[in-house]
Amino acid sequence: MQKLYMLNQNQIPILEQLHRCGTRTPHAPFYAPGHKRGQGISPYLTNVLGEEVFAVDLPELPELDNLYQPYGVIQQAQALAAEAFGAEQTWFLVNGSTAGIIAAIVATCNPGDKIIIPRNIHFSVISGLVLSGAEAVVINPEYNSQWNLAYSITPEAIEQALKQHSDIKAILHLYPTYEGICGDITAIADLAHEYHIPLIVDEAHGPHFTFHPDLPTSALAAGADLTVQSTHKVLGAMTQASMLHVQGSRVNRYRLTQALQQVQSSSPSYLLLASLDAARHQMATQGKKLIADTLKLAHLARSQLQKIPKLSVFHPQSEHQNQKSLEKTTGFIDLDLTRLTVKVSDLGLRGYQADEILHQQLGITPELPSLKCLTFIISLGNTKTDIDQLIAGLTTLANCHRTSSSMLHQPEVNFISPETSSVIRPRTAFFAPVQLRSLEKSIGYISAEQVVPYPPGIPVLIPGETITLEKVQFLQTLLNSGATLTGCSDPTLETINVVDCHPLKV
Amino acid sequence: MQKLYMLNQNQIPILEQLHRCGTRTPHAPFYAPGHKRGQGISPYLTNVLGEEVFAVDLPELPELDNLYQPYGVIQQAQALAAEAFGAEQTWFLVNGSTAGIIAAIVATCNPGDKIIIPRNIHFSVISGLVLSGAEAVVINPEYNSQWNLAYSITPEAIEQALKQHSDIKAILHLYPTYEGICGDITAIADLAHEYHIPLIVDEAHGPHFTFHPDLPTSALAAGADLTVQSTHKVLGAMTQASMLHVQGSRVNRYRLTQALQQVQSSSPSYLLLASLDAARHQMATQGKKLIADTLKLAHLARSQLQKIPKLSVFHPQSEHQNQKSLEKTTGFIDLDLTRLTVKVSDLGLRGYQADEILHQQLGITPELPSLKCLTFIISLGNTKTDIDQLIAGLTTLANCHRTSSSMLHQPEVNFISPETSSVIRPRTAFFAPVQLRSLEKSIGYISAEQVVPYPPGIPVLIPGETITLEKVQFLQTLLNSGATLTGCSDPTLETINVVDCHPLKV
Repeated sequence: MQKLYMLNQNQIPILEQLHRCGTRTPHAPFYAPGHKRGQGISPYLTNVLGEEVFAVDLPELPELDNLYQPYGVIQQAQALAAEAFGAEQTWFLVNGSTAGIIAAIVATCNPGDKIIIPRNIHFSVISGLVLSGAEAVVINPEYNSQWNLAYSITPEAIEQALKQHSDIKAILHLYPTYEGICGDITAIADLAHEYHIPLIVDEAHGPHFTFHPDLPTSALAAGADLTVQSTHKVLGAMTQASMLHVQGSRVNRYRLTQALQQVQSSSPSYLLLASLDAARHQMATQGKKLIADTLKLAHLARSQLQKIPKLSVFHPQSEHQNQKSLEKTTGFIDLDLTRLTVKVSDLGLRGYQADEILHQQLGITPELPSLKCLTFIISLGNTKTDIDQLIAGLTTLANCHRTSSSMLHQPEVNFISPETSSVIRPRTAFFAPVQLRSLEKSIGYISAEQVVPYPPGIPVLIPGETITLEKVQFLQTLLNSGATLTGCSDPTLETINVVDCHPLKV
Repeated sequence: MQKLYMLNQNQIPILEQLHRCGTRTPHAPFYAPGHKRGQGISPYLTNVLGEEVFAVDLPELPELDNLYQPYGVIQQAQALAAEAFGAEQTWFLVNGSTAGIIAAIVATCNPGDKIIIPRNIHFSVISGLVLSGAEAVVINPEYNSQWNLAYSITPEAIEQALKQHSDIKAILHLYPTYEGICGDITAIADLAHEYHIPLIVDEAHGPHFTFHPDLPTSALAAGADLTVQSTHKVLGAMTQASMLHVQGSRVNRYRLTQALQQVQSSSPSYLLLASLDAARHQMATQGKKLIADTLKLAHLARSQLQKIPKLSVFHPQSEHQNQKSLEKTTGFIDLDLTRLTVKVSDLGLRGYQADEILHQQLGITPELPSLKCLTFIISLGNTKTDIDQLIAGLTTLANCHRTSSSMLHQPEVNFISPETSSVIRPRTAFFAPVQLRSLEKSIGYISAEQVVPYPPGIPVLIPGETITLEKVQFLQTLLNSGATLTGCSDPTLETINVVDCHPLKV
């Protein structure tokens, strides 16, 4: 990539140009979109979304560059983002991190190639496996049964897999987890490079790490070759807007660019692109202060919530030594302190139940309920008022449920499925002839579907894996506790599509 | 799909619910997006996009349903859209028609299966071929060399291909073309069904056809099994928002749903979804009137522009009999009269040059320049003022260039590449080991890249096709006339990636 201009982090090239194009006169628009700078928009829509946004919902005009062959403002904005996030090259994504993860797998794996992935992957990794035809070497993450929380996969487990399979072409690492848990990414990057393969990172929840020293190290700083960040999840971009960053020469950038174009619209939304540009600008110019403020809010919430009886806040051992805290392991060496995970199960409540009470009755919306916990994202968008409301709400919740003990004697549920037996590649299973069977009668068969309880969105079955009694029981437990199953044909899971062949002994 | 509610086209379920969620109090947001109803958005961004839009840039809250397992407002909105557009089932798309086309191919073709496609396909069809592993039977469309315009593929050519290849699994038809040209879709649908295969339609440019009798028949009315429409291109949705419609049982809806989830963000933008909902509502309640107004504007433009010497307006024979008009063929049986294609080559100008003059100097932005023509989209977003400006602008252009004859003796360029020789499947070529060769020295090799001149975005080379002297010369002519090449590694086309094997005799 040639840099023919000086990078100035005070500029917002896409947004600035978009503003010029949206206000230009005279202007007779005979292009798509059909609404033409808002002239044809339904008044019902402008009533809710405002009018200004439609004036800049513009197509790839010459002044606005081309996302898939950038030469102007998109090239500049991506170069600024690369500098700000510590990458050599950055791609803006309008189809979420999903597009980035798929393209990363397609760019690094040929059909049949092996890639290491953790069990606690996002759904998009399965899509990447199906579309690329790669074979997954699935590693279970460390697991904290007390909290029912998955940690990271460990360098030790990865090294074992690398020794066992001599032909692994890439490692895909989840960093941080949904709950902000960080594994030993530096050791994993070193391992990958020792074996001359790239480290791909699903850093969807860590786009802010670069901008404050009190946050965990960023994937790029740890040596990752490629990282995908959901800029929208934590920073100031709009929903569905993400970034992909690359450094070094282990990833084929041409193949990556091709793959990104394959899985993204040829009519990219400039609203999403401009929001990425503005989010980068905001972080580059004020990131450290904004994140310091966020960390202060998180610290306030953390310290207050810990005082509420029967609630526990997930916390690493090195801090708050006098409080109940958790031992670090190689699957958990750091925590994003802006991510707050609170255990509610000692109140006799499942996370799903607590989520519903908070959201419906108290006007507090967590990000992620799980069996025992609730996870809250605290970001630059939160205020002191939000935190006060959170503390008050959880106090109310605890007061109302303190005496309950309905869950105390329920059996522990392991969040991570037992031993995985992957029989055929996800792509093979996806395209195979299938038969629909009742769940009970599917045991021993190869699943043609993914089954992803949501939340937390971690697949229990990947296409090509054998359905076992343990997995069936686990899924039924999750269903009974209020989780929704996605990705599968029958969300009640009475039936499931299996590969049409003889069952295996399990 | 169960309909447990009465359909009322006056409702806008997603938009209405989004408004409620965006204004709800008290509300302490601890979810993604990080900006939390706009609280954390950069003021630079709100200055341009307004503030209101961020209050409703919300995630998949329980009230807002789930795009990939709809049970609430999305399900309702999609059912309303199905009714309005004449489908049995509709899917809203947040990754453009690209996502719909890929999913349609993946849903109907297993790896190695054959699918009929026209040469004048959109790039997303290549993506669908690469990702599915399907084999393309490419049919050249009819071609008008005087206008340098591709028409549709004909039922005759399709029937010949069906007889020649006994194992074709689907037909993908482009209807209408970018210029609004419609082939004999009813005959093509009948043919497909006679051979017991589904007809998939890229109806990106025809989402308005359902809503006015003076427009060509819609793909669904003609019997198509699946159609993908860029709601944003012509109707009142936001850029990147599209719909996919299905009827009948020839398309596996489960596989389709899976494939759609694979190629779309798991954080879909509710702005895009609400705009689809509002666009449907607008059409269902006032579509006929709005399109009648648009047709009137188009008629005004058409009749005035035809009076300008040395400009010709593309027009079928049945209307304006006294004027220069074009004979209909089976590749051109109807025209979308809201699409205006004007030939400027008699002014001694290439379409690309005329486009630049209009856009840069006269504030008139066409949709699509080609070698000889300009195409203008007239939609519900256009006003009488726009049309007056268009007429005045083209009059000025013609006056300034009337005496020019620079292009008169330039050789004719066929827009459609000569005979296609596809040697290996697109997927095989995409994943094959490649070598980078200079374009001149690539003749006889198999292209590993697509080469797509933009505009008009019709591939000259698809991965797996042989590079011939004619194609190289054609690409060089396009480059010399101002087209941009996309999809390929080197936009100047000095070099190209070819499959690393011996060259073929061509």
